[in-house]
Amino acid sequence: MAREKRRYDDNKGIGLVSPEDFTFGNNGDGLILQSGKVLAPVNIRYETYGELNKDKSNAILILHAFSGDAHVAGFHNPDDSSPGWWDSMVGPGKAFDTNKYFIICSNVIGGCQGSTGPSSLNPETGKPYAMDFPVITIDDMVNAQVRLIDYLGIDRLLAVAGGSMGGMQALEWATAHSERVQSALVLASTSRLTAQGIAFDAVGRNAIMSDPNWNNGNYYGRAVPSRGLAIARMIGHITYLSDESMHKKFGRRLQNKENYEYDFNDQFSVESYLEYQGDKFVERFDANTYIYLTKAMDYFDLSEKYGSLTYAFKKTNARFLVVSFSTDWLYPPYQSKEIVFALMKNSKDVTYVNINCPYGHDSFLLETERQTPLIASFLESVYRSIR
Amino acid sequence: MAREKRRYDDNKGIGLVSPEDFTFGNNGDGLILQSGKVLAPVNIRYETYGELNKDKSNAILILHAFSGDAHVAGFHNPDDSSPGWWDSMVGPGKAFDTNKYFIICSNVIGGCQGSTGPSSLNPETGKPYAMDFPVITIDDMVNAQVRLIDYLGIDRLLAVAGGSMGGMQALEWATAHSERVQSALVLASTSRLTAQGIAFDAVGRNAIMSDPNWNNGNYYGRAVPSRGLAIARMIGHITYLSDESMHKKFGRRLQNKENYEYDFNDQFSVESYLEYQGDKFVERFDANTYIYLTKAMDYFDLSEKYGSLTYAFKKTNARFLVVSFSTDWLYPPYQSKEIVFALMKNSKDVTYVNINCPYGHDSFLLETERQTPLIASFLESVYRSIR
Repeated sequence: MAREKRRYDDNKGIGLVSPEDFTFGNNGDGLILQSGKVLAPVNIRYETYGELNKDKSNAILILHAFSGDAHVAGFHNPDDSSPGWWDSMVGPGKAFDTNKYFIICSNVIGGCQGSTGPSSLNPETGKPYAMDFPVITIDDMVNAQVRLIDYLGIDRLLAVAGGSMGGMQALEWATAHSERVQSALVLASTSRLTAQGIAFDAVGRNAIMSDPNWNNGNYYGRAVPSRGLAIARMIGHITYLSDESMHKKFGRRLQNKENYEYDFNDQFSVESYLEYQGDKFVERFDANTYIYLTKAMDYFDLSEKYGSLTYAFKKTNARFLVVSFSTDWLYPPYQSKEIVFALMKNSKDVTYVNINCPYGHDSFLLETERQTPLIASFLESVYRSIR
Repeated sequence: MAREKRRYDDNKGIGLVSPEDFTFGNNGDGLILQSGKVLAPVNIRYETYGELNKDKSNAILILHAFSGDAHVAGFHNPDDSSPGWWDSMVGPGKAFDTNKYFIICSNVIGGCQGSTGPSSLNPETGKPYAMDFPVITIDDMVNAQVRLIDYLGIDRLLAVAGGSMGGMQALEWATAHSERVQSALVLASTSRLTAQGIAFDAVGRNAIMSDPNWNNGNYYGRAVPSRGLAIARMIGHITYLSDESMHKKFGRRLQNKENYEYDFNDQFSVESYLEYQGDKFVERFDANTYIYLTKAMDYFDLSEKYGSLTYAFKKTNARFLVVSFSTDWLYPPYQSKEIVFALMKNSKDVTYVNINCPYGHDSFLLETERQTPLIASFLESVYRSIR
């Protein structure tokens, strides 16, 4: 995710924000997972922007993608050089307009940015869970978010919205918790990964698990599997971009050299870029979370859960905005169309747009010009319909 | 490469064959590389099938892809359960008809299947070269092949033919050694890798170099970087297939389980398949060769070498057959079309076919039904024109 270099007080966004924590499960009310196991306690790191209105009808839950976190918009500290991961879309006058709506975003369980995950302390041992953390699914992530929404006293969300893995959560909300959502925004997402998508995830997990520092997941407090995680990230990064955007960005340029000298120090710009991205990622992300969250995505399959995709949407009352991107080959447009067709078969209210955009899967993070009016008018229409 | 299970005496192919070796460079006649370094001695492992005719006009040089070798067709031993890598296309009555043509294939230099490469002994140290092996390029590979063809007493090849990295060599032959080739068959190939292709290669190299057993390339005689190499192969394998073929082959099936149990032993079929492919590859391939050959492919760029792709083909007298495959996203059809357009701008003789085929980049190895008549008639036409 390319975060824009900015200052908190430049009047382009919502300024300073603070994360909050909600913990539950200490009183026998832990989270019952899809596997049957119980997770307790559960901490949920979340942020909110804007004001919840009196009848609590203007709340929108934003659902982050695989490597995202609760920090969607604004700055945590005056010294931060870049804002939250979707600041271009969330703030006063933006697509998710904080002058109108109350925006919530929480770090998923299994994550590593404040919510309970494999790096959290296992109450049974007093040590980090590591691979003793239970396998979690998209359903489990959403069930934890339901507890947060209950805690915030919100009966029904105006919208759930997310790209990529966030879109899977939006789909899960709109199918399993249909009575709690007015609308769902599903961006660059799918009702189930392709075999190719699973394959890329599997290689990333393999890279991490092959790093001797991984040590069966027990690396907390010592050297982390940084090479394995960096390689997993490089693979991921290629799949988030497109051939076209990589060509435009890097072409076949060599790094720092007028004439190459035929040695292994010669690097193409794209190689240096990937290595930089891999190394940078290691500083902020937990390798075990990489393993758990990719597995959660691999398991997600609405057709398998409901018997068919058409049946999955039978009972939903939500209105849908589905957006795909022409160059997204990881979550290709045909998968968004499958969702749209299934909704149409059920005569549900769905708006679908395939945006012609060169940035591949990352388009949902990078393209603001066409997404902004689309999302703003969709939300406005949903909001008007309930007032 | 999926090799068919067969027996040597089933009358479907050319039966038993033996590899041969040609060594040069021991008399001050080493191979001058593109880097300016000299490689000596140079061994070339090669195989031939069929008979060279009296005027030596029926010789075809087949050029193998990245993980291929000199063993194109037939069986080395009666016990072998599968034939050479392109046995479906090379043999009596096949596309490359050994009743008519004299077929040659050699392992590339830098390789690990008999020709001089990083695992060969460095005469200066008496130890394997490892990373002291000089960086080699596609041009260098072809220059070594020129020496082999000279040694075999062949003035002009009827054809050079190869898929993928083999196609790059065919292009190099037809541009730099145009007077030595009547025709070039360029299958599933490119005049230069995309930035995405370079990126995948770079991640594969990173995976190998991050394996502690790699040890800066000095692993000969001890534990090899098998995990790193397996991961590199898994990444490669995904890029050789297509979303469509993976979906057809594996879908989202789980391995060995009726009901999954939400643990990390649950594997999708595609995961098990990739791990199997990765592990199998380690048994037959040298990790340093992986590094050297991917770098050679990354460097290959006819436009850069000649100023433009059009200029690259200005002086060639070869006839061309260019074949791309609809689902090949690693060497996409638009790259074959660039070659075809450049040839047409020079009014060269070119036949181009884009074959609709689900198998991705590997199609050139797997699709025989449509390639066979295409290649057979092209070769026949070239052969007729010189008699």
